[in-house]
Amino acid sequence: MGEVKVIKVNESIFAENDRQSAFIRERLSGQGTLFLNFMSSPGSGKTTTLVTVINRIKDRIRIAGMDVDIESSLDAQRVADRTGVPYLQIHNGGLCHIDADMTARALAEFDTEGIDLLILENIGNLVCPAEFDTGAHHNITILSVPEGDDKPLKYPLMYTVSDVVLINKIDTLPYFDFDIEKAKERILKLNPKAVFFPISAKTGEGTDAFCEWILGEVDAVKAGKTR
Amino acid sequence: MGEVKVIKVNESIFAENDRQSAFIRERLSGQGTLFLNFMSSPGSGKTTTLVTVINRIKDRIRIAGMDVDIESSLDAQRVADRTGVPYLQIHNGGLCHIDADMTARALAEFDTEGIDLLILENIGNLVCPAEFDTGAHHNITILSVPEGDDKPLKYPLMYTVSDVVLINKIDTLPYFDFDIEKAKERILKLNPKAVFFPISAKTGEGTDAFCEWILGEVDAVKAGKTR
Repeated sequence: MGEVKVIKVNESIFAENDRQSAFIRERLSGQGTLFLNFMSSPGSGKTTTLVTVINRIKDRIRIAGMDVDIESSLDAQRVADRTGVPYLQIHNGGLCHIDADMTARALAEFDTEGIDLLILENIGNLVCPAEFDTGAHHNITILSVPEGDDKPLKYPLMYTVSDVVLINKIDTLPYFDFDIEKAKERILKLNPKAVFFPISAKTGEGTDAFCEWILGEVDAVKAGKTR
Repeated sequence: MGEVKVIKVNESIFAENDRQSAFIRERLSGQGTLFLNFMSSPGSGKTTTLVTVINRIKDRIRIAGMDVDIESSLDAQRVADRTGVPYLQIHNGGLCHIDADMTARALAEFDTEGIDLLILENIGNLVCPAEFDTGAHHNITILSVPEGDDKPLKYPLMYTVSDVVLINKIDTLPYFDFDIEKAKERILKLNPKAVFFPISAKTGEGTDAFCEWILGEVDAVKAGKTR
């Protein structure tokens, strides 16, 4: 019988993505730029969270951001208008995620030299973005109270790959059946190192602690201490 | 120069999917079964909506359902426990959608003869499921108030392919900036034939009108009047 050559397409896609994302991360670490990838369901409050957080720390560090969307530029415009920081809109033409190659192409269009914090607002989706390392130093997932505390059970990979979970819209806790302790417990089973910040991006509650975490990580990158 | 052969991979995938979905739809129409595909973001209330709706009409028609999830069986169990109707859990192993082939394979495992209404609860995602015709007679999207009225601008394909939009969690309207008229206007630009039902799956408000719509469509399928 002849020899059969087997190509594992998925593996090679992910291996290539891993190489590229490691390269991005190394380059950004080298220039002292912390890169954070924000992921969540549609409507969990990524944009509002970023506006609130950026406005609290923009006088202390230099910030730039990138937003991925299918075809609209609403979110990038919203953040740029409300914070004044430079923002790049990436249109991915209907894809459900952004990978390291797309991130690298965006970075080629965008001057990040001298930037302390680079933000990526990923597409609203709990499945696909979790599969692709974008080159960020940390993945941050936003879980909003109205979505329910069962999301970690249903979209486990997202919570496995996220270091930080922002539990957002805590101002609406009285109106929904959402058990913060249950959510934490489910997430810690997937990622024992996960760190939590219960916040309300709308009222600002809880965002100070998250801002302190970001500033600490910026210092860590500059000290060469982040992965 | 030699001839270059070009294969449009996407087109052929979708053409094959269209053939299979048309076949499923025809078969179900032939046996008088209405097939509805429910899509939405994670946490918009698909499962709660289905429990409420099924319990309101299960004494008038015979119902069965299928739920797609990555690896958990929570939702199918929840619906089966709370309604008593037969439910099939489909695990798609990490994919972000279900296509006609997966639907056909699920239907091969599941006796739908004599069923008046077959429900598919798709994976929580506003991007991928919109791309694949599952063979359903109608696509139904649930847009929940906490997600915001801008979702049609950001995930246009989902609203373009949906005939019915359930605006869910209207009991929380006082706590969120959500303009129902603005949402409707944005959706009607994408699909001028879209029909709306503002509901609260939790309190039951508004679900009667949607139940009447379903019963009308069941009659239409049996009369051979649905596509």
